[in-house]
Amino acid sequence: MYTYNYLFDFTRNIFTRMGCSEDDADVIAEVFLSAEIRGHSSHGMIRIKDYHDLWKAGRVNVRPEIRIVHETPSTAVVDGDNGPGMIAAKRSMEIAIRKAMTAGTGWVAARNSNHFGIAGYYAMMALDHDMAGICLTNANPLVAPTFSISRMMGTNPIAVAIPALNQPPFVADFATTPIARGKLAVAEKKGERVALGFVQDKTGKPSDDPAILKAGGSMVTLGGDRVHGSHKGYCLSAIVDIFSAVFSGANFGPYVPPSVAYLPVLEKKTGEGTGHFFGAMRIDAFQPGDEFKAKMDEWITTFRTAKPADGQEKVLIPGDPERESEERIMKEGISLVPAVKDDLVKIAAEMGIDFI
Amino acid sequence: MYTYNYLFDFTRNIFTRMGCSEDDADVIAEVFLSAEIRGHSSHGMIRIKDYHDLWKAGRVNVRPEIRIVHETPSTAVVDGDNGPGMIAAKRSMEIAIRKAMTAGTGWVAARNSNHFGIAGYYAMMALDHDMAGICLTNANPLVAPTFSISRMMGTNPIAVAIPALNQPPFVADFATTPIARGKLAVAEKKGERVALGFVQDKTGKPSDDPAILKAGGSMVTLGGDRVHGSHKGYCLSAIVDIFSAVFSGANFGPYVPPSVAYLPVLEKKTGEGTGHFFGAMRIDAFQPGDEFKAKMDEWITTFRTAKPADGQEKVLIPGDPERESEERIMKEGISLVPAVKDDLVKIAAEMGIDFI
Repeated sequence: MYTYNYLFDFTRNIFTRMGCSEDDADVIAEVFLSAEIRGHSSHGMIRIKDYHDLWKAGRVNVRPEIRIVHETPSTAVVDGDNGPGMIAAKRSMEIAIRKAMTAGTGWVAARNSNHFGIAGYYAMMALDHDMAGICLTNANPLVAPTFSISRMMGTNPIAVAIPALNQPPFVADFATTPIARGKLAVAEKKGERVALGFVQDKTGKPSDDPAILKAGGSMVTLGGDRVHGSHKGYCLSAIVDIFSAVFSGANFGPYVPPSVAYLPVLEKKTGEGTGHFFGAMRIDAFQPGDEFKAKMDEWITTFRTAKPADGQEKVLIPGDPERESEERIMKEGISLVPAVKDDLVKIAAEMGIDFI
Repeated sequence: MYTYNYLFDFTRNIFTRMGCSEDDADVIAEVFLSAEIRGHSSHGMIRIKDYHDLWKAGRVNVRPEIRIVHETPSTAVVDGDNGPGMIAAKRSMEIAIRKAMTAGTGWVAARNSNHFGIAGYYAMMALDHDMAGICLTNANPLVAPTFSISRMMGTNPIAVAIPALNQPPFVADFATTPIARGKLAVAEKKGERVALGFVQDKTGKPSDDPAILKAGGSMVTLGGDRVHGSHKGYCLSAIVDIFSAVFSGANFGPYVPPSVAYLPVLEKKTGEGTGHFFGAMRIDAFQPGDEFKAKMDEWITTFRTAKPADGQEKVLIPGDPERESEERIMKEGISLVPAVKDDLVKIAAEMGIDFI
C-alpha cells in the first residue's frame, strides 16, 4: 500500500525530471492520483509508463505553451502544443469557467493535446464555482460503429458534474462502450472469457475472447448490438468525437494519435493531436443558486430512495461509487498491481530516483 | 396513403378549432408531420388524440404566453405557460439561436411545457444558421435506474444536429433506452414477445413480455443490465432529466406530468410541467465555418466507408435512416395504422370537420 503523498511526490518528480515545469508536474500528479483514489486505476499510475515512453520517443512536448487560438464571449479553442493532455485540459476548463462567469456558460474545444487521464476530474472543477461541468474527449480507435468491423472511434467518455447543496454532487463519468478497455486486459491476463456484448471478431460476430482486438476484432458501442440499441451508443461516441475533434481542429475517429509509443505515428492526419471538449454552466444563469442546489438534493434523495430490485441493496447516484472509493482509499492507501510497480521501479531507476 | 398537405391542413385545423392561434397550429402541424415523414410515427399523428384528450380535460393551455423568466448573455429560462410543448420548444430554440449569434452559444431551459413531439426537429432548427443544435427533454416515468424496479425516468431523448458542407447534416435523435416505448405497444398488439434486455418485471427480473409495464414492470436504460453498462444509460437519462427539469424549474423524474389524459394529474409537484433543454452553437465560434463544414464532410465520408460486418450492406451516419424515410414518404405518401385513422375520424367528427 502506498500513501497518496508518496505517489504524488513520485509522479511529480518523474515529470519534472522529464522536463515539465513544477506547476505542470503538479497538475499531472493530481490528475493521475485522482484516478487512483476514485477507483479508476486504469487511468492512474499505469499511464506514467505511456507518457515516459512517448517522451523518450520525442512524441510529447513537456514544455507546452497552451494558447487560445480563437474565442467569442462564451467559447474558445485552445491549442495544447502537443503537451501532456492534463495541461491543456485543466487550462481549457479554467477558461470555460472564466467565460461562464460573464457569459453564463463557457465552452472550450482543445486540440493538439494528448491523453488527459480521467474526464471526471475536469468536469468536477466546475463544482467549486457553483457551476455544472462537462468534459468529453476522443481517444485511440478501438470501437466499431454499428454494422461495421472497422475500428473508427475510441471509448470516448462523457463526464458531467452538477453541484448539490447538502448532498454530494452528481458526477457521471463513463465511456460510451459497455466496458472499459482495461477490463478486457484484466480478463485476458486471468485467462477468462468475457460476456458477449463487449467485443466482436474480425467478421463482426459477437465474441467472448478478451484478446480478440489482437486478431482484428473490435469493441462495440454501448447497447452491444443493433437490437439492443448499439446505434445509440454509436451516436454518442460520434458526438463526442465530433465535439472533441471537429470543433477544435484535432484528429477525428481513426486518426486520433496513439497514446502509447509502441504504436507507430499515424501517416494520415485530419487535424492536430487528440481533441477534448469542455463546458461550464453557472447554475445561477438558470435558477437562483440555492434553489437549484436544493432541488438537486431533492433529485438525489428521490432517486436514492427508489425501490431496489430483488437481490439488490440500494440504488446508486452517479458519483457514489467513486466517492466511496475515495473515502476508503484515502484511509487504507493505494495498492498497485505488480506489473505497474515493476514498470515504475524501472522508470525510477532510469530517471535516477527511487521507487520502493 | 395521405399527402403531407392533407395531414398538415387537418392537424392545423384541429388545433385552431381547439383554440390555438393560427401560428401555433402551424408549428404543431409541422412538428407532427416532421415525425411522420422522418419515420417516427410514434411521435406523429398518433399524438393528436393525446392532446385532444388533454384539451377536453382542461389540462393544456391552448393560448399560452411563452415568456423568458431569466437570462444571461448565453442562457435563458423559458416558461411554456402549460401550452402544447411544440410552442415552448420552438420558441426556446429560437432564443438559443439568437443568443448564439452574439455570445457564440445559446442555452435555454424550458419549464411548464408538455410533450413536444420529436427532439430532432428542434436540434435541426440550428442547421440553417450554420450552428450545431442540441435538444433534450424529460418524459413520463417508465424507466428504472440500474439496480431498481421503480419507474423514475422517461425515455429521455437526446438530439444533436451538426451541419456539413456537401454531405447531408449529422442528425442523431435517440431515446436513452434500448428501444422506444412504442415498439413495446406494437409487439403487444401483435401478440409477440420481445428480446430480453428491454424490460424487467416487478421484481427486477429480465422479461420478454411487452405488456409487463401493466404488471408493475419497467423499461431498462440503454445498456440493458449492469454487466452491459445499463448504469451508463442511467447516467445519460439522469443527465437529460436534470438539464430538462432542475435547470428549468420543471418537474423531474417520477413527477413529470402524464402526457395522456387517462392518467390522473399527479399529486406531488417538484416544479412546473414538463421540462426541455436546448442548445445552439455557432460553428464559427470555434472554426472558420467552411473549414468546419468541410471537415464534417470528411468525417461523414470516412465513417460511411467503414468496412461493413459480414452480412451488412453499409455503415450508416446518424440521420441517414430518417432522411431516406423523408425522401421516400414525401414521394409515396404517409400511411396511418387503422387505429390512428379511427381516432382521427372520431376527433374530426367531434370538432365538426372531415377526415377521410
